[in-house]
Amino acid sequence: MLFAKKKKKIDGDKHYVSLANIVGETAILYKKEDLVSYDCDGFTIHKSMPKAVVFPKSTEEVAAAVKYCAENKIPFLARGAGTGLSGGAIPLNGEVIISLAKMKQLLSVDFENRQAVVQPGFVNLKLTNSIANKGYYYAPDPSSQYVCTIGGNVAENAGGAHCLKYGVTTNHILGLEVVLSNGEIIEISENGIPDAPGYDLLGLLTGSEGTLGIVTKITVRILKNPEGKQTVLAYFDKAEDGSHAVSDIISAGIVPAALEMMDKTAIEGVEAGTYPVGHPRDIEALLLIEVDGVAAGIDEQIEEILKVCKQRNVREVKVAESEEERGKWWANRKTGFGAMGAISPDYLVQDGVIPRSRLPKVLQNISEISKESGLRIANIFHAGDGNLHPLILFDSRIPGETEKAVKAGTACLKACADVGGSITGEHGVGIEKIEEMRFIFTDEELEAQTKIREVFNPENLLNKGKLFPTPSRCMDVKKVIKEAAAN
Amino acid sequence: MLFAKKKKKIDGDKHYVSLANIVGETAILYKKEDLVSYDCDGFTIHKSMPKAVVFPKSTEEVAAAVKYCAENKIPFLARGAGTGLSGGAIPLNGEVIISLAKMKQLLSVDFENRQAVVQPGFVNLKLTNSIANKGYYYAPDPSSQYVCTIGGNVAENAGGAHCLKYGVTTNHILGLEVVLSNGEIIEISENGIPDAPGYDLLGLLTGSEGTLGIVTKITVRILKNPEGKQTVLAYFDKAEDGSHAVSDIISAGIVPAALEMMDKTAIEGVEAGTYPVGHPRDIEALLLIEVDGVAAGIDEQIEEILKVCKQRNVREVKVAESEEERGKWWANRKTGFGAMGAISPDYLVQDGVIPRSRLPKVLQNISEISKESGLRIANIFHAGDGNLHPLILFDSRIPGETEKAVKAGTACLKACADVGGSITGEHGVGIEKIEEMRFIFTDEELEAQTKIREVFNPENLLNKGKLFPTPSRCMDVKKVIKEAAAN
Repeated sequence: MLFAKKKKKIDGDKHYVSLANIVGETAILYKKEDLVSYDCDGFTIHKSMPKAVVFPKSTEEVAAAVKYCAENKIPFLARGAGTGLSGGAIPLNGEVIISLAKMKQLLSVDFENRQAVVQPGFVNLKLTNSIANKGYYYAPDPSSQYVCTIGGNVAENAGGAHCLKYGVTTNHILGLEVVLSNGEIIEISENGIPDAPGYDLLGLLTGSEGTLGIVTKITVRILKNPEGKQTVLAYFDKAEDGSHAVSDIISAGIVPAALEMMDKTAIEGVEAGTYPVGHPRDIEALLLIEVDGVAAGIDEQIEEILKVCKQRNVREVKVAESEEERGKWWANRKTGFGAMGAISPDYLVQDGVIPRSRLPKVLQNISEISKESGLRIANIFHAGDGNLHPLILFDSRIPGETEKAVKAGTACLKACADVGGSITGEHGVGIEKIEEMRFIFTDEELEAQTKIREVFNPENLLNKGKLFPTPSRCMDVKKVIKEAAAN
Repeated sequence: MLFAKKKKKIDGDKHYVSLANIVGETAILYKKEDLVSYDCDGFTIHKSMPKAVVFPKSTEEVAAAVKYCAENKIPFLARGAGTGLSGGAIPLNGEVIISLAKMKQLLSVDFENRQAVVQPGFVNLKLTNSIANKGYYYAPDPSSQYVCTIGGNVAENAGGAHCLKYGVTTNHILGLEVVLSNGEIIEISENGIPDAPGYDLLGLLTGSEGTLGIVTKITVRILKNPEGKQTVLAYFDKAEDGSHAVSDIISAGIVPAALEMMDKTAIEGVEAGTYPVGHPRDIEALLLIEVDGVAAGIDEQIEEILKVCKQRNVREVKVAESEEERGKWWANRKTGFGAMGAISPDYLVQDGVIPRSRLPKVLQNISEISKESGLRIANIFHAGDGNLHPLILFDSRIPGETEKAVKAGTACLKACADVGGSITGEHGVGIEKIEEMRFIFTDEELEAQTKIREVFNPENLLNKGKLFPTPSRCMDVKKVIKEAAAN
């Protein structure tokens, strides 16, 4: 036959051939031109090339690929949609990337026991879309929910605007199937065993940023849609009034489903972005507040919220009059990070958490950091749970400005840690905040955690170099030896 | 001076003297007659004598006592109020018991950030009593809450009637100070850092049944009292109608604060106990249902609950007319276990969890287990979250009856595991359910967990012999060697 279809051949080294044998020849990328889009994730400041990307279609293929890598001492890591903001999926050591993109099925839904089982590559928003017709939804709603995967959400313990009332990802995970770093497959609370005894491995794995295993199946809790929902938009001339309104609403005993805040620079960005809604440009703060629950109770809570806003000198406050109006407000908020592209060539988003009562003080600190660095900082954040997102605007084409932005970001996190807060609420540590872990953990505490990693990941081939700094004790020892040698 | 006060002297071995030097001479028990009340906890079927009991007054004293035990290879364990129901505080290996009874202070309350810091020996109910005047409470409410300690609640990840809506202990713990098994002190989320990054050590420690460390300070979440609260009591002729009503209420989208069930034998017990309220004796099931939240929404939910009960052929249903009446219903329920003493010389309480939808099937199974064993089984339980408490009534004076009761208890747990449930919801594994861990975990899964214990407790001196069975693989190896030797 003259034009016989040429069989695709793997022309790389023996590892490419072996991995292709596991996942299939059409399910591996290994040429440089194919790998470039895998050199970073949503954290674009650092880039590093993988050795290959494989796309397994089943738990068994994941396990076989992992086993092969482990036996051949090839570093590897898992990747979902690559929307992570702290660099957790960046192949620092030339890893083989195990992409879960082809494992994207909704496996089952059990409405009676309010559970669904999904593969890790299943997109977050698709779950809600798949069960909405029966009146159910999946609560964790990161802003990237239309594209991020539930597997990635588990790795990062993702949050979202509605986590104030409903909790973050870990509060909604009932069971996991996990491929360990040696290729062994374990089930944790298979099919969502309620309250499994023993140590809380479910909690331990969730948010472990891909360093303890690769999740291949997830049982999640699904919730019945609240009976009613109302959304309020409030504009404040003074940022401080907005901050105090946040505290006042919570103090009044209301737990809104969401309580979001944006400052003046953020408003400038979202109004220049894809979903402008006509916010006034001369206010210092806006609050987006959503209340849901039993219909009969909502009006009363809205009244209380309006009262609090008025006491805090609100310029204008309005309740969404239709689902369409509500949808527009949320689209404006949820695409907020990306919208910064309209007012700045680059931006770096940070993710600190503070006790709610320290909001006015820390916003003041961030404003000072902005002045000192000479960079504008926008704030779009989950005010209700004290989860700040300073967006540092910079221009990477100007020499030194990237470094300035990184330094300002670190200063913002230090400000959070100094008031008893944390350096990440939902974006994770990844490679971005490794050194900042020292702001809140002692060497002993870091050591206890790295020892746990050793249990699951003894060779440290799985997602190496993420999450934990090298304990400074070790570095001190080196310094001491060096100094001793010099004397 | 003729009658000089005689100084108390430690007349035991050198370890007694050394421990007395750490905690003080009046803070150690070591004579047999003083130790007898420490030979078991709420699980009274197994007894074992401790070497000594020490009563440290500070974290430093706990750390020093632990360090001493570790250095001298003396097994040790922590004890709160000793109300645990699975034997977690029983000194199986002649342990030194580190009692937290003297560390019982409420250290601070931060209403603005909704946190309180307590010592581990602080009694659960005292926290709510201490903050009630400001309109706040602490949610986890085990039936023993008037005496059990928050430290013990952390160890067992205690639940309670109101955990259906508010979650168990782990959902309310914001920070821990822990003495590790070598005497090192670590802080996890010191002062309740929100969303601390890294592995979820807070979740790992909570519910680890005293095998990973000794908790010496606890930061807990406190909640604002709900605006309104209503309580319903419903009597059903048929147990199955009661079970279906439970599912129907949840399916209607209502999440009651509590949804408790009692069967006929249980009603006989509570009505013969200290707090009878006049339940009819000829019904097969009663439901105690509480709804709380925004006042305006409650009436509507109560209407819906009454409707569901009627559809399920309820004989009588009533709403509590006063806080006093509500209090009586709850006292009747919360003292239910102890009340069994009025109708049986002994009882063994079990603690299984099932998917809510399997309630009718599993109650049927338990009834068959009762018939087969010839022992009566009462059921008082958290129906809303599928957490069953079969109370097996027996008489330990009749030879063989204790063994029969234990066997029936195991059969109940097997029935729970077989429908995809768990062997403990809130009482823990302790020594009672060690072998039953195999109903739900494979050897690999048990091994992963014991490896985590090794990280925190490498010498296994801390609460040895609890929580995990010896992996059966090891036993198999022994058997194989033995058989090989015999051939």
